[in-house]
Amino acid sequence: MAQEPGGLPLPSVAVVGGTGKLGAALARRLARAGIAVAIGSRDADRARNAAAHLAADIGRAVDSGSNAAVAARADMVILAVPYDCHLQILGEIRAVVAGKIVLDTSVPLVPPRVARVQLPPEGCAAVAAQLFLGPTTTVVSAFHNVAAHKLAADGPVDCDVLVFGDHKQDRETVVRLATACGLCALHGGGLANSAAAEALTSVLIFLNQTYSIDGAGIRITGRLDAEPRA
Amino acid sequence: MAQEPGGLPLPSVAVVGGTGKLGAALARRLARAGIAVAIGSRDADRARNAAAHLAADIGRAVDSGSNAAVAARADMVILAVPYDCHLQILGEIRAVVAGKIVLDTSVPLVPPRVARVQLPPEGCAAVAAQLFLGPTTTVVSAFHNVAAHKLAADGPVDCDVLVFGDHKQDRETVVRLATACGLCALHGGGLANSAAAEALTSVLIFLNQTYSIDGAGIRITGRLDAEPRA
Repeated sequence: MAQEPGGLPLPSVAVVGGTGKLGAALARRLARAGIAVAIGSRDADRARNAAAHLAADIGRAVDSGSNAAVAARADMVILAVPYDCHLQILGEIRAVVAGKIVLDTSVPLVPPRVARVQLPPEGCAAVAAQLFLGPTTTVVSAFHNVAAHKLAADGPVDCDVLVFGDHKQDRETVVRLATACGLCALHGGGLANSAAAEALTSVLIFLNQTYSIDGAGIRITGRLDAEPRA
Repeated sequence: MAQEPGGLPLPSVAVVGGTGKLGAALARRLARAGIAVAIGSRDADRARNAAAHLAADIGRAVDSGSNAAVAARADMVILAVPYDCHLQILGEIRAVVAGKIVLDTSVPLVPPRVARVQLPPEGCAAVAAQLFLGPTTTVVSAFHNVAAHKLAADGPVDCDVLVFGDHKQDRETVVRLATACGLCALHGGGLANSAAAEALTSVLIFLNQTYSIDGAGIRITGRLDAEPRA
């Protein structure tokens, strides 16, 4: 396992949908932070190509394979797939993610009206994923509001990452991963609170369109202590 | 009607729930910006006392009365009441707000778990208000994320105000009002998008508790043009 400067181990990560824009950007950030990353795709050839490209970039090998294959081998699974195949791909990995954290980045955008909030009946995509996967897997959600092209560039990103999950320790693992990637990550509360960040993505798309913004994001204002309360 | 520096007229405003923390803070900001404000309350005596206090502060008369009485006399009505009496108070003013904008500040906080997102079946409080009032009244929503005590203080507030509504012109009226009050207000899209800001309030409460913040807020990041696209 990779380690933070402080010494805590960081999990190995499989990025399901790792050839998409957000997935590729996350994989690159994680790999450059020294974290062991695997690229998954429905098309194993595409995953292999993307992994070879990333390996050349970072100067060490990057694992790849089908979504289920990489999910089976990693400590943690990041889900970065289009919303219209969210549950389908969760079905493909369900058998191999028991006991693991699934970090779901899904936002319930429903084309053509992607600038309109359309949350699912479960309240949000993250809760829908948790209900679908059952209690042996822990769903944490994050990265809803960061524009993929800003994440793909090097350097800081002017957007806070809100992390949601029902177990503080699992949220903390994701907060540490995001922090290792150079992002400012904050505990946002229980998984139901993911509705706020998921809905906000449609508002950010509206703001991009209305004010000609190239990837609006959010920052939490107010005095922030370095560490959450014990 | 009061005028902006640019010359456009601003509506007179009745604040329903104007003796509460958020209502009083909004009434004071509006009044100090030169806007004609009336204070409404379920208790007309309390409204009169609050109006006298505000009048002494700003040096001119402030109207007051029951919620329905002030709503009947004003161009626009701001609803700043606790969520548990949201629909009840909408019922008290429904007959007198036809043809007007009702600016709803309601956030669906459900005690005791106010740091947990619990959106209503209609999607959000603002849409529930619009369904309740019917099409002769236009609901716009805003001010979900600004801490009342920060609004009550003079000077700038480090929190953007997202404004939601299905009619751009009515949203624009609210954007202009908030701007006149010294706030940075942005069009956030259709009324359904209010779900994002309403849900975010529970996340901000969670952040306040977790990181010892005295009134967390949000800022939209990215390049913002001064004016929305035509």
